[in-house]
Amino acid sequence: MGSDAAMSPKITVELLRQLRQAMRNTKYIAEPIQAYIVPSGDAHQSEDIAPCDCRREFICGFNGSAGTAIVTEKHAAMWTDGRYFLQASQQMDNNWTLMKMGLKETLSQEDWLISVLPENSTVGVDPWIIAADQWNNMSKALASAGHSLVAVQDNLIDAIWMDRPTRPSTQLLTLGLGFTGLTWQDKMTALRSKMAERKISWFVATALDEIAWLFNLRGSDIEYNPVFFAYAIVGMNTIRLFVDIKRLAVPTVREHLQLDTPSKAELSVQTAPYESVFTELQAVCASLGPKEKVWISDKASCALTQVIPKSHRSPIPYTPLCLAKAVKNATEIQGMKMAHIKDAVALCELFAWLEKEIPKGTVTEISAADKAEELRSQQKDFVGLSFPSISSVGPNGAIIHYRPLPETNRTLSLNEIYLLDSGAQYIDGTTDVTRTMHFGSPSAYEKETFTYVLKGHIAVSAAIFPNGTKGHLLDSFARQALWESGLDYLHGTGHGVGCFLNVHEGPCGISYKTFADEPLEAGMIVSDEPGYYEDGMFGIRIENVVLVVPAKPKYNYRNKGSLTFEPLTLVPIQAKMVNTDLLTQKERDWVNEYHRQCRETIGAELERQGRKEALDWLIRETQPIA
Amino acid sequence: MGSDAAMSPKITVELLRQLRQAMRNTKYIAEPIQAYIVPSGDAHQSEDIAPCDCRREFICGFNGSAGTAIVTEKHAAMWTDGRYFLQASQQMDNNWTLMKMGLKETLSQEDWLISVLPENSTVGVDPWIIAADQWNNMSKALASAGHSLVAVQDNLIDAIWMDRPTRPSTQLLTLGLGFTGLTWQDKMTALRSKMAERKISWFVATALDEIAWLFNLRGSDIEYNPVFFAYAIVGMNTIRLFVDIKRLAVPTVREHLQLDTPSKAELSVQTAPYESVFTELQAVCASLGPKEKVWISDKASCALTQVIPKSHRSPIPYTPLCLAKAVKNATEIQGMKMAHIKDAVALCELFAWLEKEIPKGTVTEISAADKAEELRSQQKDFVGLSFPSISSVGPNGAIIHYRPLPETNRTLSLNEIYLLDSGAQYIDGTTDVTRTMHFGSPSAYEKETFTYVLKGHIAVSAAIFPNGTKGHLLDSFARQALWESGLDYLHGTGHGVGCFLNVHEGPCGISYKTFADEPLEAGMIVSDEPGYYEDGMFGIRIENVVLVVPAKPKYNYRNKGSLTFEPLTLVPIQAKMVNTDLLTQKERDWVNEYHRQCRETIGAELERQGRKEALDWLIRETQPIA
Repeated sequence: MGSDAAMSPKITVELLRQLRQAMRNTKYIAEPIQAYIVPSGDAHQSEDIAPCDCRREFICGFNGSAGTAIVTEKHAAMWTDGRYFLQASQQMDNNWTLMKMGLKETLSQEDWLISVLPENSTVGVDPWIIAADQWNNMSKALASAGHSLVAVQDNLIDAIWMDRPTRPSTQLLTLGLGFTGLTWQDKMTALRSKMAERKISWFVATALDEIAWLFNLRGSDIEYNPVFFAYAIVGMNTIRLFVDIKRLAVPTVREHLQLDTPSKAELSVQTAPYESVFTELQAVCASLGPKEKVWISDKASCALTQVIPKSHRSPIPYTPLCLAKAVKNATEIQGMKMAHIKDAVALCELFAWLEKEIPKGTVTEISAADKAEELRSQQKDFVGLSFPSISSVGPNGAIIHYRPLPETNRTLSLNEIYLLDSGAQYIDGTTDVTRTMHFGSPSAYEKETFTYVLKGHIAVSAAIFPNGTKGHLLDSFARQALWESGLDYLHGTGHGVGCFLNVHEGPCGISYKTFADEPLEAGMIVSDEPGYYEDGMFGIRIENVVLVVPAKPKYNYRNKGSLTFEPLTLVPIQAKMVNTDLLTQKERDWVNEYHRQCRETIGAELERQGRKEALDWLIRETQPIA
Repeated sequence: MGSDAAMSPKITVELLRQLRQAMRNTKYIAEPIQAYIVPSGDAHQSEDIAPCDCRREFICGFNGSAGTAIVTEKHAAMWTDGRYFLQASQQMDNNWTLMKMGLKETLSQEDWLISVLPENSTVGVDPWIIAADQWNNMSKALASAGHSLVAVQDNLIDAIWMDRPTRPSTQLLTLGLGFTGLTWQDKMTALRSKMAERKISWFVATALDEIAWLFNLRGSDIEYNPVFFAYAIVGMNTIRLFVDIKRLAVPTVREHLQLDTPSKAELSVQTAPYESVFTELQAVCASLGPKEKVWISDKASCALTQVIPKSHRSPIPYTPLCLAKAVKNATEIQGMKMAHIKDAVALCELFAWLEKEIPKGTVTEISAADKAEELRSQQKDFVGLSFPSISSVGPNGAIIHYRPLPETNRTLSLNEIYLLDSGAQYIDGTTDVTRTMHFGSPSAYEKETFTYVLKGHIAVSAAIFPNGTKGHLLDSFARQALWESGLDYLHGTGHGVGCFLNVHEGPCGISYKTFADEPLEAGMIVSDEPGYYEDGMFGIRIENVVLVVPAKPKYNYRNKGSLTFEPLTLVPIQAKMVNTDLLTQKERDWVNEYHRQCRETIGAELERQGRKEALDWLIRETQPIA
């Protein structure tokens, strides 16, 4: 992304004129609408979206990850949160009002609409890109003020977006048992037994990572996310996969899905075009018996949800696929371990290289991130990055969601802290790691705060807790040392991580926000990433991906069993940044044992790959601390 | 309560026959109803209730604090939770089915009704004792199955309850500025400014402790709770108090409320009979302007909530009174401190006395609790206990909500742990303290688990955390040491405590259950009470009431400020039970500093009161640990 595109406002006069025209055009709607809502998601409620789905960015210019635009006959407003106030104000022109979410004086979308709309107005939205629960809330609020919310089937942005990119349809990759541990047929059978248990006749899969996981297929339709656009409808004897049919012409894919020679009737996959999911679901619902129930995620699109008559609809916060996918099997765990070893090799090389190059004054945030990508790409089964690298020097490190751009790009030096939060997709697993380093002499204050963050990281990583504990109950352990000194960080501590899938996934996590997280279970994989950010100065974050494993403490209360974490990330934590006086003996032991593992496991692989300089660096960086 | 009443089943054949007759009697309802729901609450959703409101106990015999009975033409079922399975099964006869909540196979009330009712049935409930949100949920569930929920204005239990006690109408006590710190007029003005801020015209107060707090009045209508039956409706120029008018004949009360000589028109209190709140609220609502809004708690009764037309109703989880009451002012804090000093004096005396008497083999759980009450009653401004004492020896200590009964009463000995959880109401404050003691030689295991509980208690009490932190984020600190050894306890860690009001109050608390608690603020008062329970063996709990106070750590991140706790309870923690090897130096320092405060503050008061033996005991029990 170039600097001009990112930071000068998009001129939207003409676009808004066209959109307002479309809002009155009976080609799209029976009656004119007085407002049109443009949410930021796609039809699958994906966190990252494809260029063809960046409709909110198209209409207002703001390209952050979260934001909703609403256009009325006279006004245009865009809601986003504190991370993006500055960026949004720079990217939007004067036709737009920035609605700063989280500030007391900022009206909600509903209240704003009610305040600006004439009586008895009609508000339109594309029902495919608004979730069913959001539709309900908006619809109720508008109705209480005499307005109504209507579904506009043709997307009005698409109608005026002349050079809209086409929906990607990348090549599908089939994953064998060596990567997945379970055939898609096994997963289908497990899904059906969950359905039978709850007396559910049909399940509608709408989340892209769940569909990719279920069929042991991967794509690259969305940058950083190895997924492909699809829907699936599963009955007790039926499997329907909705996907661009062209993608199924490949022999390996046909064979993988047994499209031509299904082994059993109930495991025969019927394929249909991506767009036909709506009419096919209608057909399924038309033939439902009086007591039959259909499972669909409560985050699925309003359009698809409403196809299912209310009496047959059974919305669930986490689908059985989401829950099954979160608990990794032995093969997936092995794959994740392998991926993290390769990833650590690349990072050890990077840091050894940085140490040599930084004094020359030629390494920048962007070139360091590029070098990290280059080194990762040399590793076996590398596919791509798992998210845009956060490569940040000094004050840029305090911007939590920073991405280096040419106009913000700082040079790495011996005087400033360097924070690198990066990760990759390998066919055997997904990584996500943050290390914070100083290549000169850190100040006492930098060391002190780094050490508090490290204490928090260890407190979570070494925590022992009962089976059935939800991740949010561990969040305060990560903050305790910072809190004791009056410090804190304003983000959660961890998120679920997919296996060669999205780097963020549900249903588990570690956060002070009490979202409806599911209890941690052995085999789940989450990140552990406390931080500290001093505005205008520096940012610190220490992030490992960790695996939930059984623990064996002295007692076993009510036979509940205990859990703890095992780090999958094996990259040294810079000892130079640690004020060891602030660590307890237990914490020092943890660091030394962690570094012993790094040296043993990554050292062997560096040796095998003949990467001598990185090996020397690793050995030096993993010396025990006193 | 005698043992027969408590433990043999109540014979309910005749009562059920009468109730079923009433369910068909057109004197009470236009059309017969097929089921009648008997919730356990009163019209104010009080946690403890008066005898006249014990309708669920009357109909089924079960007298635990939580449970709902439902009677149909053919069935009678009662839902309660795991604390009460044994007790309920002993107290109910064969006409009743015990529905064990929390077990997977147990149907919810809705699902059970749907499974047993004939088509198109009508289910009745007294709208005064079901909360508005519960009504909505039940009504929706029944409607989805073709049944309907109707409000039965005459309570059908009252109709068949011949010797039903009358509603208490105890003498009102007026509290002066020396106890409250704010006149009721000040509180009224503050309430109105909150209303003005949110553009609210009227506020309906339904919670008894909120009304008592607002008017600086106390009663004794409900055992342990110094409250009185009343409602209040407050407008910007109007104050209506609904209470048994006879109570207002007392000159001190008339003067306190300025009933005869109001200082200002808008502070003139109009009084009306308790029962007239319904018609008066109807009159208020009839005169509302089109945009006027009425605040009412979302936990208020369905009857009163539904008087307010939906378009004018603004339900809130915590009323402004609940929030204001939770933050104690300087006078209240001073009163709470005084109450805790007196309470500690009584407990030091008790423990010194127990030490002498236990070897004689004559002290039982009941007589120890009685002695505690006697000693407390000698203290100035003692009013009564704040809840039934949990006085438990050995295995009884593992029953978390234990109350000694003649048939369970154990003798205190030198061989078993003694747990006493007790508290009192004084005019200046409310106390709640738990100490766990061994009067002989505790085993290594008892000491070990006690020490883990102590570590958890200290971790919460000494925690420093940012302003704005919710209490539930501190819960895991209390469990960390137990978890590390594979242990846990199955209750929350703390609850809000009133000031000469209910010993349990909202909106703050410390619990793993993520209820909608409000952030902790300086001036709030909560309990800190982790425990450990070994079924059939012993129970351990260490509980202090603690005050939220500002903390001054080294840094002040984003000027947010920090908080910590100051113990109000000042009763020694038995050093004999501590395995000091398991404590860190910081924890040992905490214990020694705490005991220094106990000795200094309580020692001075014991000296002043000339209670020499207790003073000697205190001095011995507060020796520093090494």
